Amino acid sequence: MAKLTSRSEDYSKWYNELVTQTGMAENSKVRGCMVIKPYGYAIWEKMQAELDRMFKETGHQNAYFPIFVPKSLFEAEEKNAEGFAKECAVVTHYRLKNDPKNEGKLMVDPEAKLEEELIVRPTSEAIIWSTYKNWIQSYRDLPILINQWANVVRWEMRTRLFLRTAEFLWQEGHTAHATKEEAWEETRKMLDVYAEFAENFMGIPVVKGYKTPSERFAGAEETLCIEAMMQDGKALQAGTSHFLGQNFAKAFDVKFATKEGSLEHVWATSWGVSTRLIGALIMTHSDDNGLVLPPKLAPIQVVIVPIYRNDEQREAISEVSLNLVSELKNKGVSVKYDDDDTVKPGWKFNEYELKGVPIRIAIGPRDLENGQVELARRDTLEKSLEKLDGISETIVQKLDEIQENIFQKAREFRDEHITEVSSYEEFKEVLESKGGFISAYWDGTEETEEKIKNETKATIRCIPFAEADLEGKKDVFSGQEAKFKVLYAKAY
Amino acid sequence: MAKLTSRSEDYSKWYNELVTQTGMAENSKVRGCMVIKPYGYAIWEKMQAELDRMFKETGHQNAYFPIFVPKSLFEAEEKNAEGFAKECAVVTHYRLKNDPKNEGKLMVDPEAKLEEELIVRPTSEAIIWSTYKNWIQSYRDLPILINQWANVVRWEMRTRLFLRTAEFLWQEGHTAHATKEEAWEETRKMLDVYAEFAENFMGIPVVKGYKTPSERFAGAEETLCIEAMMQDGKALQAGTSHFLGQNFAKAFDVKFATKEGSLEHVWATSWGVSTRLIGALIMTHSDDNGLVLPPKLAPIQVVIVPIYRNDEQREAISEVSLNLVSELKNKGVSVKYDDDDTVKPGWKFNEYELKGVPIRIAIGPRDLENGQVELARRDTLEKSLEKLDGISETIVQKLDEIQENIFQKAREFRDEHITEVSSYEEFKEVLESKGGFISAYWDGTEETEEKIKNETKATIRCIPFAEADLEGKKDVFSGQEAKFKVLYAKAY
Repeated sequence: MAKLTSRSEDYSKWYNELVTQTGMAENSKVRGCMVIKPYGYAIWEKMQAELDRMFKETGHQNAYFPIFVPKSLFEAEEKNAEGFAKECAVVTHYRLKNDPKNEGKLMVDPEAKLEEELIVRPTSEAIIWSTYKNWIQSYRDLPILINQWANVVRWEMRTRLFLRTAEFLWQEGHTAHATKEEAWEETRKMLDVYAEFAENFMGIPVVKGYKTPSERFAGAEETLCIEAMMQDGKALQAGTSHFLGQNFAKAFDVKFATKEGSLEHVWATSWGVSTRLIGALIMTHSDDNGLVLPPKLAPIQVVIVPIYRNDEQREAISEVSLNLVSELKNKGVSVKYDDDDTVKPGWKFNEYELKGVPIRIAIGPRDLENGQVELARRDTLEKSLEKLDGISETIVQKLDEIQENIFQKAREFRDEHITEVSSYEEFKEVLESKGGFISAYWDGTEETEEKIKNETKATIRCIPFAEADLEGKKDVFSGQEAKFKVLYAKAY
Repeated sequence: MAKLTSRSEDYSKWYNELVTQTGMAENSKVRGCMVIKPYGYAIWEKMQAELDRMFKETGHQNAYFPIFVPKSLFEAEEKNAEGFAKECAVVTHYRLKNDPKNEGKLMVDPEAKLEEELIVRPTSEAIIWSTYKNWIQSYRDLPILINQWANVVRWEMRTRLFLRTAEFLWQEGHTAHATKEEAWEETRKMLDVYAEFAENFMGIPVVKGYKTPSERFAGAEETLCIEAMMQDGKALQAGTSHFLGQNFAKAFDVKFATKEGSLEHVWATSWGVSTRLIGALIMTHSDDNGLVLPPKLAPIQVVIVPIYRNDEQREAISEVSLNLVSELKNKGVSVKYDDDDTVKPGWKFNEYELKGVPIRIAIGPRDLENGQVELARRDTLEKSLEKLDGISETIVQKLDEIQENIFQKAREFRDEHITEVSSYEEFKEVLESKGGFISAYWDGTEETEEKIKNETKATIRCIPFAEADLEGKKDVFSGQEAKFKVLYAKAY
């Protein structure tokens, strides 16, 4: 196992090595597409299970819509189409044939050209709203609260494992409502679900806020987001919830008869999180020794490593360990007993540290004599001797402590990296020396936003929900009257 | 709610009406692609959960590979490529642009042509084996036991909801082994998993067997299958498990160092089931009143309908019902209390009958007085009065009975529709008058198989595993010496 590059040496290299060496993902032979390997996918499955439960608890059902969007539907909502047109994979033919000039090779059959091109969905508003049109006649058909787990394709030029890939996995909620108020309520509710998931399960503190018009989802009237901060001081958008107004209902002519008998356009929301969250998870908690995973999402929460010199010791330790395994399983803890004798305990220690297993238990012959085990915490790297009697309760309690600790640690880091600035000089200085979120007043113009972005690469991550006192405040760049207090940052 | 067409009137129409009226699926605006609606998707989720558990219990892990296969990888295994080339969706471009001749419309940007075309996966052997090449160096890297839940696209010309669609959802297992024996063992093991799932969860009896060479998966050395029988006497292939030999290892040059130090090609299997199973589920059990679902896969297992004339009655019934709901939930039963007062009980009875809810409980004021409820079984349409005291136990027991009963019923039907024939005249006569599986001797030649197919549309569904006495037996068509005893049928 090669030693990881450290974060301070090269953060980006550290990240890539971590993702590949832990067996989470790797680049494939398809430009920009990744292979999500079993260890990475196991984390995604844990995320999916929690999110799916939360979506269902808030009244949503799953469904599945086609991966292809006919071009004429794709272009119906103009802003949405414009926003995604430049990064679309387009299916133009439906057959291959033998290449007469190259034996054993295939070529696209020119006679199998589609009458209308199909776009591989970059997002599903168009295909879904063209379907909802037939589902909605009256207020009785509303609301529609549907979520889809799916793959989507956006032809990004610069890709990075999990963070930005041409194909990624996500969920996309698409809801239809009778009133503006109800659609707004849904938009906010789902942002809250995302924030709760990020903080309570991923251990990632987030700021909730509005996107500026230039950062909005193409076709949305408002985009709400949760913004997280990575250890290199860059921001990462961890989830978005869009209030779509009546844009898609108008584009696809979706109207409903109200209780009073009038005909009105339907109100819409959409919201999504993706496998990008795995990148956020890695970059928030991990260290130079490898992954640090929150217990609630760790595929293996506890590993037990036996240390022995002979068969007699091995058998005695194995008996105790297997009892512990079954005790922990009964408590709902995911545990692995690693008695592979082809590698040494030290190798295993490194391996599970690299893979971010929250708790490692080591048991040797002297431990058995003393009725104790060694417990190593991945988050703090602390080791302690714990009584064997009642060890499963100790472990469950430590898992809770770890979950809480990594969230607190990430929150402290995040809070230390929100810097309020009052001049553009200070803005630039803080951005370069310290990074993180820069809290500053903004005049609300796209011009200012654009200029700052061009000069510093920092963008407005969000306008936080928290109310700001704008009385007498000036834009940090233009000196004009402030309309909002916003968070700037360089971002993934 | 329109009355369903009956099965005897028009089986195919009955099926389509059932799928759409129950809200399981509908055709989309994309040729041959369906929308899987919430009720249909909820059944798929239940199937996924069970299958996923069974895959994991047999040592498999999930992962995810790209949806696109570059043409050069796609054509590497020639038979596989040839088998799927005629039904491939091909991505040729990665961008749209504004159409200068049509304001507001988009066109494919000719400058964004891909250097190499990408095939939307019809199956993933090629992309996966090109990846496994980097994962496998030594026997220590084997076996690899991976499953993927994914969408695939096969450009079928004639499509039917669930049964045959251009895009469908499935799982595909792809395993790599050091020896032929181990790969064969895996091939058989996964067929057993499918058979167990079909019989114990879907309530569908299946015949296990080998496919003939002409019906094999393109690129496989052997294809094992489970074959089910629908109520119209047609067969449906419900799952396949392929022994791929070293074909893909050779095509992608995947070798491993053995314990002894020699270099050998890796052995492979692949196996899959798809959303087509939902079609099989519908066609096996349902009747002229609607769906009949096995309790183990029913999204709603029990529905409780209150019957009342006034608020006082309503409250009393509601209290009892909600107690029952929570008792049933504690027993792991999925239950719905439907107290919607905008529709009448009779409408609800029809609705849940149509949707195949296994048990319906009706509670009226007189029932409360008598300490009883009315229990209606969807499978037999029988109604009985059951004591309120202990009703949750009664329900759990009845659910088990229903699960068992629909399987037995389907098995009797299937067994009655396996007919042994000894002449080709009898073969044709039985096929037309009775349908079902025709058990006959075969000379093992593709010629005979082909001729029978052309004349009767019946194909060899499988060579059952059960041993047959071939001594002195002759092919039913050619009169040549019999090599196998096989099952013929018309098939979906």
